[in-house]
Amino acid sequence: MSRPLAMIIVTKPEATEEQVQHIIDRIKEWGLKAEVSRGALRVVIGVIGPEDSIREKPIAAIPGVASVTPVLKPYKLVAREFRGMNSNVKIGPVVIGGEEIVLMSGPCSVESREQITGIASAIKKSGAKILRGGAFKPRTSPYSFQGLGVEGLKLLAEAREETGLPVITEIMDTKDLDVIEKYADCLQVGARNMQNFALLKEVGRSKLPVMLKRGMSATIKDLLMSAEYILSEGNFNVLLCERGIRTFETYTRNTLDLNAVPVLKAETHLPIVVDPTHGIGLREHVASMALAAVAAGADAIMTEVHNSPELAKSDGEQALLPDEYTDLVQRVRKVAEAVGRSV
Amino acid sequence: MSRPLAMIIVTKPEATEEQVQHIIDRIKEWGLKAEVSRGALRVVIGVIGPEDSIREKPIAAIPGVASVTPVLKPYKLVAREFRGMNSNVKIGPVVIGGEEIVLMSGPCSVESREQITGIASAIKKSGAKILRGGAFKPRTSPYSFQGLGVEGLKLLAEAREETGLPVITEIMDTKDLDVIEKYADCLQVGARNMQNFALLKEVGRSKLPVMLKRGMSATIKDLLMSAEYILSEGNFNVLLCERGIRTFETYTRNTLDLNAVPVLKAETHLPIVVDPTHGIGLREHVASMALAAVAAGADAIMTEVHNSPELAKSDGEQALLPDEYTDLVQRVRKVAEAVGRSV
Amino acid sequence: MSRPLAMIIVTKPEATEEQVQHIIDRIKEWGLKAEVSRGALRVVIGVIGPEDSIREKPIAAIPGVASVTPVLKPYKLVAREFRGMNSNVKIGPVVIGGEEIVLMSGPCSVESREQITGIASAIKKSGAKILRGGAFKPRTSPYSFQGLGVEGLKLLAEAREETGLPVITEIMDTKDLDVIEKYADCLQVGARNMQNFALLKEVGRSKLPVMLKRGMSATIKDLLMSAEYILSEGNFNVLLCERGIRTFETYTRNTLDLNAVPVLKAETHLPIVVDPTHGIGLREHVASMALAAVAAGADAIMTEVHNSPELAKSDGEQALLPDEYTDLVQRVRKVAEAVGRSV
Amino acid sequence: MSRPLAMIIVTKPEATEEQVQHIIDRIKEWGLKAEVSRGALRVVIGVIGPEDSIREKPIAAIPGVASVTPVLKPYKLVAREFRGMNSNVKIGPVVIGGEEIVLMSGPCSVESREQITGIASAIKKSGAKILRGGAFKPRTSPYSFQGLGVEGLKLLAEAREETGLPVITEIMDTKDLDVIEKYADCLQVGARNMQNFALLKEVGRSKLPVMLKRGMSATIKDLLMSAEYILSEGNFNVLLCERGIRTFETYTRNTLDLNAVPVLKAETHLPIVVDPTHGIGLREHVASMALAAVAAGADAIMTEVHNSPELAKSDGEQALLPDEYTDLVQRVRKVAEAVGRSV
Repeated sequence: MSRPLAMIIVTKPEATEEQVQHIIDRIKEWGLKAEVSRGALRVVIGVIGPEDSIREKPIAAIPGVASVTPVLKPYKLVAREFRGMNSNVKIGPVVIGGEEIVLMSGPCSVESREQITGIASAIKKSGAKILRGGAFKPRTSPYSFQGLGVEGLKLLAEAREETGLPVITEIMDTKDLDVIEKYADCLQVGARNMQNFALLKEVGRSKLPVMLKRGMSATIKDLLMSAEYILSEGNFNVLLCERGIRTFETYTRNTLDLNAVPVLKAETHLPIVVDPTHGIGLREHVASMALAAVAAGADAIMTEVHNSPELAKSDGEQALLPDEYTDLVQRVRKVAEAVGRSV
Repeated sequence: MSRPLAMIIVTKPEATEEQVQHIIDRIKEWGLKAEVSRGALRVVIGVIGPEDSIREKPIAAIPGVASVTPVLKPYKLVAREFRGMNSNVKIGPVVIGGEEIVLMSGPCSVESREQITGIASAIKKSGAKILRGGAFKPRTSPYSFQGLGVEGLKLLAEAREETGLPVITEIMDTKDLDVIEKYADCLQVGARNMQNFALLKEVGRSKLPVMLKRGMSATIKDLLMSAEYILSEGNFNVLLCERGIRTFETYTRNTLDLNAVPVLKAETHLPIVVDPTHGIGLREHVASMALAAVAAGADAIMTEVHNSPELAKSDGEQALLPDEYTDLVQRVRKVAEAVGRSV
Repeated sequence: MSRPLAMIIVTKPEATEEQVQHIIDRIKEWGLKAEVSRGALRVVIGVIGPEDSIREKPIAAIPGVASVTPVLKPYKLVAREFRGMNSNVKIGPVVIGGEEIVLMSGPCSVESREQITGIASAIKKSGAKILRGGAFKPRTSPYSFQGLGVEGLKLLAEAREETGLPVITEIMDTKDLDVIEKYADCLQVGARNMQNFALLKEVGRSKLPVMLKRGMSATIKDLLMSAEYILSEGNFNVLLCERGIRTFETYTRNTLDLNAVPVLKAETHLPIVVDPTHGIGLREHVASMALAAVAAGADAIMTEVHNSPELAKSDGEQALLPDEYTDLVQRVRKVAEAVGRSV
Repeated sequence: MSRPLAMIIVTKPEATEEQVQHIIDRIKEWGLKAEVSRGALRVVIGVIGPEDSIREKPIAAIPGVASVTPVLKPYKLVAREFRGMNSNVKIGPVVIGGEEIVLMSGPCSVESREQITGIASAIKKSGAKILRGGAFKPRTSPYSFQGLGVEGLKLLAEAREETGLPVITEIMDTKDLDVIEKYADCLQVGARNMQNFALLKEVGRSKLPVMLKRGMSATIKDLLMSAEYILSEGNFNVLLCERGIRTFETYTRNTLDLNAVPVLKAETHLPIVVDPTHGIGLREHVASMALAAVAAGADAIMTEVHNSPELAKSDGEQALLPDEYTDLVQRVRKVAEAVGRSV
């Protein structure tokens, strides 16, 4: 037997012998192998064959089938076994996924040259290695500030000129890939677009690295499947970002799922970023969650910083002031060292 | 006072007099009016002014602010008050939102001419008024069947020719609008793209009606805000579709939130569709949930039907057989009449 | 082979031959039978034997085990197969689980003789068959009204004297069983106590029927397991009540999970009650959800009615006025008839 | 004005002048003060008076009321402001809530003298300060091991004799308080009983400290309200324990909500415990989450340890081996020092 077992089918207690035979016939028609073992009430059928073709088959729709349990994982290229070691992803000259924990920071939205350049200089001094800033902004309301668009991209590039910090910014539409590639060093796919498959395929064809944020109701497996879309188009430079999921808890903006960090490190070779700013959504508690993320094993931390949160055009209530950020970096460094890493 | 009260700010007990004054100053700087009432421990400030400009302001980020409670609703064009009555939306010649409950049906994916035309004829005979079928398919895995694309659109148009049923199909990418407009009668924005704002703006500029499905973790308010995007671009022909939300329950594929039906009918003038197929994800229970949706007040019911579920390229396990569908329509008709409507 | 297959074990790809043998040895030590089939990467072991003893075993903790999938259901006495037909449960002279849909109604809390007797008379006239009312109240805050206690039980019994309606009331403490049995006709175990196993065992030894409400975060399976506790103590007169689960949606008090109705009807022989009052928590929408519950297949509907909601000591905002209730009953009756039942 | 503002009422746009007056009259009848400010479309009424009496009133049920927003927090004794500093809670001689992070550990269930004494000795050597072990076990299935009961309590007391470690164990029934008080040093109220208010009142009258675990669907506010029950009965020695909430994610047993740690530290003076074992439910990832909990600010860490997980009568798959525990303690110590604490 040279093929791995891919799926286990269990029949209903009331399944007739004809139904069981029909299931087995279907499996054979599809060019797969069926291993049958009969219990007193149920029949168990192991399906052997190439996993991709099996996944296509509507086995659960065949009469008499009680359950279908996949044995093989549904993702391949992102699976840890595919490489057997951590991948490194480079954003400009900065390496993510190695011993060093990388700090990415900046405002929610790019608002003006002074704002973005000022913040970029401040965070660089504190120890940040990558500048974030939104030019195209996904806003719940059509009446809210939608970002400066291409003008915002240009300002990000200017801030990079001045500070040397490579730039990550969000892409929201397949049509914008060309222009963003001109100015940015890393593409961000936001939580709301995690299953925008047209966009995933498009960024999968980009030469830039991609940071994929977990959707608000995406399971860890969903996140890995979305990453698989990008890798399957040829772009292996992918970072996964935990940024909080939606639960019943309303005190915090989201529920930061730090469980996902060790689980993802075990499931995939890709580097893991944590965004405590969106994960808790309360400025005074961002630092605690950044420390926790580092202790849990994150490879990079993304936080929002603004020099004047009360004038920010978006998310002011969760942005850190530059001084608070400096303090956060010092504390992060200590925890990083306690877990055998550096900042 | 001619402006409505838009927002209520409550200060922290420890807020200083300077902080309170600073809050009031900011509000005035923004051209808004502040109504101040002072309690023993806290100050309450009512903010008066045009709602849109207020929403832009990061009030919660001002020092001393404990909470900011919006009084006005964040949506305008979709609000029931905007029209004061139900809107009707036409898909081809079929009116949704009136006394008649409209049945939309068809396979998950268009697979072949025989399949789509066969199913279209069958459901028409049973009483369906609109044909659904996916040409561009959002699939969790890049290795799953992704739809026939433009070829699928052409087959849908052929099925319309034969049966007279207008066609609804999903749009996944802004780039595809032109070609879909050529063949379809209604655009569907899927749950995974409910907050793909670039796509919402694009379909807001289309001449076709749009059915917007609720995202898996979208609140009712989020759904209305996404619809507001479409209306704010000029397209008022929008249907809202409840199709189940993601919860901790794993027995069913999703949790169909029928609470959303009476709530949406009270909040908006737009017609409400319910999709019990995705809402429960188990073929044998789709009919019960279709009846419940009608009783709850839905204007249309969308279900998946397939003539050979066990050979379907997607979602076979939840599709009804044509005979089961005929039975469902008869039961739906009785419940519709019991609530003063017709099928 | 006379024993049913109870569990399927799949090993990790990296499991050694020693580990596989160790798993098989453990199974045999426990007096169970192992059916082994070996794939290229994994070994699949079917475990045959009495399900109860298998459930005890920490199989997932054995080195080399990747997954353990139960085949048998974890509940027995509540399973539909155990009886093969619907059970009827009698509360006083009223039968629940037959062709008639039973209406249970009354205030959240018993507040006074006039209040409970007045409401009981009103709902009886409208068509209710069972009177609900809380004497021991589970309140989130220790400073909220906690119910009249034994005095409330006596008032309920008086209202039964006057109207003939049997009475259901909540039990919160094992110590209270004797006194509640003296006055009530049916015990209610509330959502917050659904996994209070000491209480479940206690009511399992009662001569009164028990209505078990689903916990806010309980899966359908959890609900059935909690019911199994009651039946396993000898009390088979159990009703299951869907009353809304906790999700991210905040517009409504809970998310009424009507999917649970057809699923429970298929999984168990016990009658199903739906409580739309707690399920949506908004008075103006309770009627829509009551209709939907009937259409989905509920056997009984429990609603809160109060003659003066704005003076109610608890839950005033979701209670119906007696006139609204009369209207609801008439609408429920029509939908019941449309699905082949009566009120 | 000497009373604090307690609540803000906003009226519906369509509320009549009579309705507004009726609201104001009600407030005055209740002996409270109303501060009225009128906007163009809505009236805002601040309600001034003692918070407890206001909370009792069904204000939302009064016609014309659109929303009721509490300004005061619903809890008093647990609020941080009540003490203005951290509380220390003593379990035997061990202080929780100070600079030292306390490690609590032991098996899920007490199974035998050898088992509990062996584990107690092992964890003591590694650095644990408190022994946990269940004698009364809340199990989902009535057919699972229910704990050794009083016999288990005696074995715990013997293990304390031998090792000096004080003992924490779960109470599930008000009837068991006396016997548990005889043998244990701290009571645990489990997640499933977090809103078992009869039990909360009972342990509120105990002389022993209480560790209250957060319910699977309890908000942070719910947890604080349940703690308020205990304090309001006179027992101020309460620990709050985050142990994971129920979300849609199924890879992990629960979703450990570490956001709750800094939030609770800001909201209450009570010490915070984190249970990473139940929070993630996967042995290989417990250590990562323990480190994250310490970094987030927890005062104590509770983990499950078993000397032979594959023979454990409950939860074997998530228990650490003694050697793994020794390693965990060493890593926890380093992170504790990095955040200015000790182990």
